[in-house]
Amino acid sequence: MSRLWNFSAGPAALPTEVLEQMQSELPEWQEAGASVMEISHRSKAFTRVIEGAEADLRELLNLPRNYRVLFLQGGATLQFTQAPLNLLQGGSADYLVTGAWSQKAAKEAARLGNVRIVSAREPFIGLPAVRDLRLSSDAAYLHLCTNETIHGVELFEESITALATAVGNVPLVADMSSHLLSRPMALSRFGLLYAGAQKNIGPAGLTLVIIRDDLLGKASAQTPALLDYRMQAKNGSMLNTPPTFAIYAAGLVFQWLKRQGGLAAIAAQNKEKADHLYAAIAASDGFYRNPVLPEYRSRMNIPFTLPTLELEAEFVRASEAAGFIGLKGHKFVGGIRASLYNAVPLAAVQALVAFMRDFALARADSGAIETVG
Amino acid sequence: MSRLWNFSAGPAALPTEVLEQMQSELPEWQEAGASVMEISHRSKAFTRVIEGAEADLRELLNLPRNYRVLFLQGGATLQFTQAPLNLLQGGSADYLVTGAWSQKAAKEAARLGNVRIVSAREPFIGLPAVRDLRLSSDAAYLHLCTNETIHGVELFEESITALATAVGNVPLVADMSSHLLSRPMALSRFGLLYAGAQKNIGPAGLTLVIIRDDLLGKASAQTPALLDYRMQAKNGSMLNTPPTFAIYAAGLVFQWLKRQGGLAAIAAQNKEKADHLYAAIAASDGFYRNPVLPEYRSRMNIPFTLPTLELEAEFVRASEAAGFIGLKGHKFVGGIRASLYNAVPLAAVQALVAFMRDFALARADSGAIETVG
Repeated sequence: MSRLWNFSAGPAALPTEVLEQMQSELPEWQEAGASVMEISHRSKAFTRVIEGAEADLRELLNLPRNYRVLFLQGGATLQFTQAPLNLLQGGSADYLVTGAWSQKAAKEAARLGNVRIVSAREPFIGLPAVRDLRLSSDAAYLHLCTNETIHGVELFEESITALATAVGNVPLVADMSSHLLSRPMALSRFGLLYAGAQKNIGPAGLTLVIIRDDLLGKASAQTPALLDYRMQAKNGSMLNTPPTFAIYAAGLVFQWLKRQGGLAAIAAQNKEKADHLYAAIAASDGFYRNPVLPEYRSRMNIPFTLPTLELEAEFVRASEAAGFIGLKGHKFVGGIRASLYNAVPLAAVQALVAFMRDFALARADSGAIETVG
Repeated sequence: MSRLWNFSAGPAALPTEVLEQMQSELPEWQEAGASVMEISHRSKAFTRVIEGAEADLRELLNLPRNYRVLFLQGGATLQFTQAPLNLLQGGSADYLVTGAWSQKAAKEAARLGNVRIVSAREPFIGLPAVRDLRLSSDAAYLHLCTNETIHGVELFEESITALATAVGNVPLVADMSSHLLSRPMALSRFGLLYAGAQKNIGPAGLTLVIIRDDLLGKASAQTPALLDYRMQAKNGSMLNTPPTFAIYAAGLVFQWLKRQGGLAAIAAQNKEKADHLYAAIAASDGFYRNPVLPEYRSRMNIPFTLPTLELEAEFVRASEAAGFIGLKGHKFVGGIRASLYNAVPLAAVQALVAFMRDFALARADSGAIETVG
């Protein structure tokens, strides 16, 4: 068996070099006399791992000094609860809904306090003009999902600037699970951001949280110590045993990213990959369609449809037979989805585009495409 | 470098065979064309992993059919919050405090509702007579920690039977983090039990929860979906992306346990290991001391002290130099602690006992022991 082209939305492809390093560090890791997953999280050896990972991450993100980095558990979904527990303070928060994930975040926050939903209209294909959103200037925060993994809607710098300007001093809180580390971003616009690891960071089971200092210490009294950002910051993410292997793996990914030339270099590759796939969709004469408005098309998650459900099912089967992993769309929206995370090489996208062209041509020849009308 | 004798309290030693299997399944796992941590948690291949792990666990534990198994995140510490959110129902719960961990559990539960602390007296060295505990017969549940990892206090079948009898229909809720899977147990006495993985189950970042069917569906309205046992049971622990690599690793550990002959066989080994170490402590003429009452001495975590703090510091240094990992006691209680989890072989304990004898003899010869008086 060899490694196949992997377009999984998450858990997603990791760099082969990283996996090979993990392999070479089993069953013994460096000079530890044990694997990295068998030593105390408070040991000197593991302290070097977590501190090194944080330093590399800060360098990659060019993170200002007044932000804290936390390595937590529970996925972005636990952040849907943790963020309001820590930041609502009995007030009201605005939730910008641009797809399935920001919608889920709003639903969980509504259990805990006053939530005002500011929604893009369905189907989710982008953002209305910011002036039409009627954002509150006195909200505890504005929550948004800057890349909707299911709907393939990404907010780029211009949208973020417009939103930040519209809300003034209201902190932006963002779920960045599926595009953090995919390109340089001006993170100083955000009060809190979080990301499940299983896209561009590492294995599932680790959640990265980045929070501005002044937002620590505002948790409600019922907040469990484990879910209090201040307590976690004070304890170096070790209020209890953190997911040590996943943190080690994330550290290897950060080192790999630095070897690639950092986020500017990886962003150029990601843009080339996405452009190549969107161009193939555009060149298919409507056989493949992506519904998202051009300026909101995600470079990470590219959903597309085929003329019929039957053709989509056939595409999934044929792609698996041809050695592609993870192209079936999310059950919420159906269709096909290709996730082009950092570890997916251009060669994978080129192979996919060639496969898509052949698939469409064969169906056009056989007359299947005529069923669209 | 070779693998050293590892007595870490957690993250703890894993079976070398398991680590070698992980190594052989990187960077490609079986026929997947990717590693196990790069594929969808909803894929057929991963479904086989999680279902296989559950089936093996059920067989090992001889788990009755009316219990559900959940693979969650957040450690036992998140269960300190999740259990009361799901089970308090506006009522009151009894918390039996026998050491540091049950104390922490009580503290977290008290944020969420009415908690009655039923405490063993400090220092924590065992359980008072159950008739003296004044347990409530109308509590929502009785929470206990059946093996206190820091204090080395374990509750065996007789204590559990006495507690279960005393509370009648009140469900027992237990933190079993550091001894689940170390010996056969009558789990049908419990309504809910949970364990952080990083002792006898797998890498840190996975929490095993086992709950009786009739206790599902009682969560309070503010309970986040992610922390609602019923929702997790309904979604096969996949309300969001679970820690897939840790679940895979736990599955390998369960297979290894079956190859060892299951829990009866591993329990015999664990008893032999613990007996050997306790005998060495008893034979040291008071140089090493374990404070726990004999019938509550843990077979998993064995804390002991030396005559002076200086000797303890010297013991830690010398043991590390001699190639032992993880013998420094927890900061709460100081001293030394040897954790003898399933993956720690008898040979490791024999090596430790020989080291302890030599260390004590050398200090007695040099007169250091006379400082005790």
